[in-house]
Order: sequence, then structure tokens, then C-alpha cells
Amino acid sequence: MTDDGLPHADLGASWRAGRPRPAGRHLDSAASSRQSNRALEAAAHHARHEAELGGYVAEAAADDLLQQGRSVIGGLAGMAAADVAFVESAQAALVALLTGWRLPAGSRVGCLPGEYAPNVAQMRTYALRPEPLPVDGLGRLDLSGLARLLAADPPRFVHLTHIGSHRGLLQPAAEAAALCREAGVHFVLDAAQSLGHADADLGADVVYGTSRKWLAGPRGVGVLCVRPSLAAALTPVLPEPEGVPPMRAFESGEAHVAGRVGLVVAVGDHLAAGPHRVRERLSALGRATRELLDGVGGWRVVEPVDEPTATTTLRPPDGVDVVATRARLLTEHGIVASAIGPERAPGEMTGPVLRVSPHLDATIEDLEALAAAL
Amino acid sequence: MTDDGLPHADLGASWRAGRPRPAGRHLDSAASSRQSNRALEAAAHHARHEAELGGYVAEAAADDLLQQGRSVIGGLAGMAAADVAFVESAQAALVALLTGWRLPAGSRVGCLPGEYAPNVAQMRTYALRPEPLPVDGLGRLDLSGLARLLAADPPRFVHLTHIGSHRGLLQPAAEAAALCREAGVHFVLDAAQSLGHADADLGADVVYGTSRKWLAGPRGVGVLCVRPSLAAALTPVLPEPEGVPPMRAFESGEAHVAGRVGLVVAVGDHLAAGPHRVRERLSALGRATRELLDGVGGWRVVEPVDEPTATTTLRPPDGVDVVATRARLLTEHGIVASAIGPERAPGEMTGPVLRVSPHLDATIEDLEALAAAL
Repeated sequence: MTDDGLPHADLGASWRAGRPRPAGRHLDSAASSRQSNRALEAAAHHARHEAELGGYVAEAAADDLLQQGRSVIGGLAGMAAADVAFVESAQAALVALLTGWRLPAGSRVGCLPGEYAPNVAQMRTYALRPEPLPVDGLGRLDLSGLARLLAADPPRFVHLTHIGSHRGLLQPAAEAAALCREAGVHFVLDAAQSLGHADADLGADVVYGTSRKWLAGPRGVGVLCVRPSLAAALTPVLPEPEGVPPMRAFESGEAHVAGRVGLVVAVGDHLAAGPHRVRERLSALGRATRELLDGVGGWRVVEPVDEPTATTTLRPPDGVDVVATRARLLTEHGIVASAIGPERAPGEMTGPVLRVSPHLDATIEDLEALAAAL
Repeated sequence: MTDDGLPHADLGASWRAGRPRPAGRHLDSAASSRQSNRALEAAAHHARHEAELGGYVAEAAADDLLQQGRSVIGGLAGMAAADVAFVESAQAALVALLTGWRLPAGSRVGCLPGEYAPNVAQMRTYALRPEPLPVDGLGRLDLSGLARLLAADPPRFVHLTHIGSHRGLLQPAAEAAALCREAGVHFVLDAAQSLGHADADLGADVVYGTSRKWLAGPRGVGVLCVRPSLAAALTPVLPEPEGVPPMRAFESGEAHVAGRVGLVVAVGDHLAAGPHRVRERLSALGRATRELLDGVGGWRVVEPVDEPTATTTLRPPDGVDVVATRARLLTEHGIVASAIGPERAPGEMTGPVLRVSPHLDATIEDLEALAAAL
């Protein structure tokens, strides 16, 4: 195993060896990561099984595996298998939560000013009133400000996006969860960008996320984890029979079950790799990305260099178009990254950024190639 | 090609040849059908492509194929590509429609008394009031009664489930659509059981359905088709930019795109087989099922023998448990069918039924084996 100058080079090597050979340099796991051969095969195998046995017979045969998956995913959120519902996406999880919660119209929700625009739009669809939480100049939650807000005029619940889609900041979720718990305010963690990337076992009442990003599972699968005390207060569209865990009523029945099987395999690989080791390597990749790219060609890194995430965003030099740059990187250099427009988080972004989000198998050479291309 | 006593034996043979060998006798396409090798491979190939290229690069590469799919699926509903949104399931389609429609609380919806319980529950979640449409003793829509209702006290819209999940009746949807159009009342067709099974190009304002049943596509994919006049009146959670067809805003972005690719292949196969020929063979299979099974062991067929569908339901003899029978058929005879409890359609069912729903590749021998096992 070659030392690549980053911690846990073995993880990088085994990630690479266990996946289809990339067509280029994939630095876009905050959009959608690269599945392993094992996860791809597990999903394809289940789909074939459906054709051999019938969809529901195959699903029943996968029941134990799916329940193990709920258990392991629950563990990432500090919850139990019974608290976990498989859904289609992080957005579907938020919709399932808000549908079940049935909060009065006009209920106030504390959100970051940089909250993900589709989340804000969903909350408004449910007639909720998102209100900005106090943050510092970078958009990081101000904990003293949160404590004052909770004491003076608490919202109905706090919704914190753990790591942004538009900025690789890790929000102080454990501290925020503790403050909310003391104040008796429910705390909901959007972990779409943090499951498999940062520790999400932080005492939240709700943790929801997606398969396809840092867990590197299939697209079309998400998870909703709700603590029993809050789950008991949710009203499903159709209740489950007695004896079934209440969160099962929030699990979609007409579903991409093969994708759930693939996700369970991917989460198993994540645990086998060691979540701590994964986080250490991802943080080191983030640091390396920022050190290598800040200032190159006039691009400026937004995040602090040592932010413990693998997501870096770059503001363009004057006159450089981010969408065109992203397209040029892809077509001329085979580098996959994302252009993030300010509509993604209009409460915080003043212009577009280029987002670079390597997973474990990225190399310093990949980042150097990006620097050279910029 | 052997004549199997049913029309279009070639379709049965080619369906069988193009699919994984079934583990038993699959008579359960109203639950979930058997995908073809081509559809399975297309979905698996796209998922692998995602791992090679990145999820969004792979999706962009599949853009033309997906647009062809919208066009062909729109054609099944008598609409255009721009009117079609890919979603996760038939239920997700209904949710997307009701979320966008934003009808006043208390709006009345004309539904069959035998309406699918999850549909009724979704409508109630949106504070709509489902009210029973007039039907005959079997649950078939009474068109004169509908005309009188539309003249005297029209509901906000009519929602017709084209073929039930609990009963293989084909509702007179074309006639109902025409009456609604004359009365200026929107007509929504739940085609979850009819896409790929019956003609759904009948003049409805909305047609929605699922991939995994009679179209024999992947699980986790559904479609919502809305005519432009109504689409223009819907409010999406997040609008699309100018120039994008408005229904695209109802398409989920965080999706099982590989499944959409698989569905497009499956729909292509359906068109290549000839929808008329498919319907003729499915109707003949339904007739053969009813002729072979009615009265066997005291089981009674609910549908008229010549109902033009492939779905048959059977009432059990006194003292026979349907769930136990379904389990016995599976474990002792390898026959896949469904037990349908009255909670599926509590406004109409008085007890459980066994549902038998062969697709094109089923044989008279499969049905005889079921008769012998009952």
C-alpha cells in the first residue's frame, strides 16, 4: 500500500479497488458518490431476484437484511432499528416528517440563513415559517445566540442542516442539540451531506439523509430516523397495525427496494472501514483541497482550511463563469465537480461557487490536476 | 412457436424468453411484475455508469433516452413528453398532484366506493372530502348516475381508479372522462393497474401510474401526466426556470434514475409488442383464469368471466383463510399470488380475496396448477 501523504491510505486504495474504474477524476461526492461493485451487484441481484420470485416475495426474503440495515443506519444517528424508515430521498424524508407532524399553520422553524432552498420551500408548503438562526460571518451557527433565542422566543422546532450543500461547513450540531433539549425544543438534523461524512449521533430528535452522497449507496433511497417520543406524536397517512414500529408507517411501500439492499451493503462497508477513519481521511482531503486550491488562478476557498469536512467551495475570480468552468473541467480535463448557483441558498450566497468534494479514493494528483486546470 | 390456446402465443413466448427463469409460477403482476433482462441490464448499466461518470454526468448522458421515455409514456396517456413527470410511485404521483393543486380544504372529490384506501387517506391528508360515485352491485361506475351528479352537485374533481387493486374490473373511463369534460369537471385517472394493461388514452386531464406492474419496469418509479391546461394551474414546491416544461418541476431530482432508464426500456418493449395485442392476450388470460378457477374447491370468482382484464379475484369458501392459502400456494406449490384484505378497499370489500394476475408469459398449465392446488 503506497503512502499517499494522507491518513489511512489503505482506505483510499480499498475504495478504489472495490469500484468501477472512474472515467475521469470524480470530485463530486456531495452531489452523488461512486457506488462499490458490491453495492451495485447487491442491488442488481435483488432486482433480478424480484423477476425470479416476484417483487414482494423477494422483499420478504430480504427482510432480515433490510432490518439489519435499519439497525446500522439507526446507529449512525444514535437511534434503533425501530426508529428508522426507508424513504426515497432526503427531501422525501422531510416531506414524510412534516406530513406526519401536522404542525399548526404559521409554526416558526429555526433554520440557518443559508438553509437549502428546497427545504425552505417544503416548509413553506406546509405553511411553516422558517426564521433565521443567528450565525457568524461565515454562516456557522452562533450557539450563544441560539441559547438566547431559545430562552426568549423559542421556535416550534430547530432544523439544522449539518453540512451545507453550498458550503462545506460542519455546524455545531451536538451543542445545538443539547441546547434545544434543555429548552424542550425539538431538534431536526438534515444529515443529507453528513451521513458517512461526519458524526451524526449527536442527540437529535430527527436525523434524515440520503444514500447516494457520502454513504456511496444508490440513488433513489433516503432515510428518516425519529426518536420514539416524537415518532409517537406523528400521524401517518395510513397507520400500521398494532405491534409494528410506528416509523414503519412512514416507510414507502411502493419502493426501490433493490436500492435499499444496495444501501445496506454500502453502510456495511462504511462501518467496516471504520467511521472514525473515514472521517479523518475525508477531513485531510478537505484540508489538502483547500491548501492546494486557494488562490490558484484567482479562485478563493470559502471554508477555513482545517474545517473537518471534505467539501470545499471556491469563489471565482472576477469575470469567470462558474457554470462554464465546471463544463470545461468536465469536457477538457475529465474532472467532475459542481457549479452551485446562489439560488441553492439565497439567504446566504451572494454569487456562484465551484464545489469540490472528493471521497476516500481521491488522490493528491487529482487535486493537483484540478489546480492546474483552474 | 407453440399455439397455447390463447391469442398471440408469440408474445407469451418472447416474454418468457426475455426474462430470468421464474422460480415458480408467477401470477402476481398486479402486485409487481417480472422485469425483462433488457430492462434489468439497462438499469444496472446506468447505475454502473453513475459510478464511472458521476451521478449527474450519467443522468445528463441519459437525457435523450429519458425524454424519449416521457414521450412514449405520454403517448400511453394521450399526452406529450412535456406533460410527463417521472416520480417514485403512483402514490408519489398523487401526492405531487395534490401538493401542486392546492385545493381549498373541504373540496369534494368523486371517487368509487371501492377506492384504494391509501388514495382516500392521501386525499384526507390534503383536507379533501372523498365522496362516493354511484356504482352498480359489482362496483362499476354508473354513468347515468355520474351524469346526474355532475349536473346536480358536481365535485371539485372526479378521481377514477381505472382497474382496482382489489378487483379486476375495468371502469368505463373514456365515457366518464367525456361526461366530466362536458360538465367542466377535471377528471383524474389512477392508472396504476392499467398502464400496460388497458388503454389509458381516454381524455383524462391527469393520468398517473407505476412502472412495476403491467409495464413490467423497475420498482421505485412512477409517472404523473397532466394536461397543459391543468399543469398551468399547479404550483410546484420550487418552480423551474423559464422555458422548462412546467411538469418538470414535479419531477423529483433526487431520484432512482437508473430505474427510469429501465422503465423506458420496458415501455419500449410494450410498444414493440403492440399494446392492442398485449391487451388481447391479457384479456384472454383473464377469461381463462376465471373459467378455470370459478367454483374450484368452493372458491368463487368476483369478476364477470369476460371482463377485459387479466386480474381475477376469488372469494374463499366458508372457513378458508385467504392469507394462509396464499402462503400455502407459495411454499407448497411455488405459486405467487396475493391475499387482499378488506382494508384495501373498505368501502366495498366485505371480506378478503385471493388475487390472481398473470402477465403475458403465464400458461394454461400455470392456471391449471393453481386450480389443482386450490
